Amino acid sequence: MDAARSRERLSAARIGHLATVRPDGGPHVVACCFALHGDRVWTAVDAKPKVTPRLQRLANVRAHPRASLLVDHYEEDWDALWWVRVDGPAAVLDDGEEREAALAALIAKYRQYATAAPRGAVIAIAVERWSGWSAR
Amino acid sequence: MDAARSRERLSAARIGHLATVRPDGGPHVVACCFALHGDRVWTAVDAKPKVTPRLQRLANVRAHPRASLLVDHYEEDWDALWWVRVDGPAAVLDDGEEREAALAALIAKYRQYATAAPRGAVIAIAVERWSGWSAR
Repeated sequence: MDAARSRERLSAARIGHLATVRPDGGPHVVACCFALHGDRVWTAVDAKPKVTPRLQRLANVRAHPRASLLVDHYEEDWDALWWVRVDGPAAVLDDGEEREAALAALIAKYRQYATAAPRGAVIAIAVERWSGWSAR
Repeated sequence: MDAARSRERLSAARIGHLATVRPDGGPHVVACCFALHGDRVWTAVDAKPKVTPRLQRLANVRAHPRASLLVDHYEEDWDALWWVRVDGPAAVLDDGEEREAALAALIAKYRQYATAAPRGAVIAIAVERWSGWSAR
C-alpha cells in the first residue's frame, strides 16, 4: 500500500488498536479512538467508563515510551482485507499546548465527544514508521 | 461483562488483535484470525501474503513468550461498544499434536482456510486472565 493510501485509510479509520508494553515487559492492547495530525497520532483518555482513571495504557507508556497503532479492515471476503500500522516513540501529555490541540482534533473527528469531551491525559505517538498491506 | 458472555463473544469473533513484544522491547500489534479451545487461543501463520514468511510475531513470541489478544466491537453508537481481552504466556508451535489440533480448529472456524489451509507455525496463548467491558 502506498504512503498516500496508508495515510488516507489511517486518518479515516474510526477505531484503532493501540499496543504498548507493560512495566513488567508484557504486551498490552486496547481499542481506542484517535486522530492523525501530520506525523503525530493522538489518543485521549475519554469519558467512556473505565475500570480505573489510572489507566494501564498510561502507566505503560510512562514505563516504556513507544507505541504501535493498527487500523485494519476485516470482512469475510479475504480479498478485501487491509491494514495500516504506525510505530514510534510515545509520550503521555498531562497538560500543555499539544494536549489541547489533540483534544480539539479528537472532538472535531468524533461528534460523540461533543457531549462528553475527553478530560484526561493524551498519548502522543511520533510516527517514525508506516507499514501497510492490502490484499488487492 | 461476565465470564460466560466474555467467552461467547471472544469465541464468535472473526478477527482479533494480537499484541506481542519485539525482541528490542517495543510493542507490536497485528490483526489475526484465531480460535479459542478451552483455555487456549490459537492463531496460525496463514496463506495470506506476508512481507516475509519469517514473521515478526513469531520472532517476538520466541523472544518474549507472552501475548495479549483483544476482540472488540465498534459502532458510532458508543452505548453499543464492548471488548474482551485475554492475556497469558505464549509459545510458537512449529510442529506436534497441539499445532495439528490448532490448524483443525482454525479450518473448522474459517471456511476461507478450506482452499488455503495454514501451513506455518501456530502461536498458542495459555489464557491466564480474561478482561472485558461492555457499555451496557
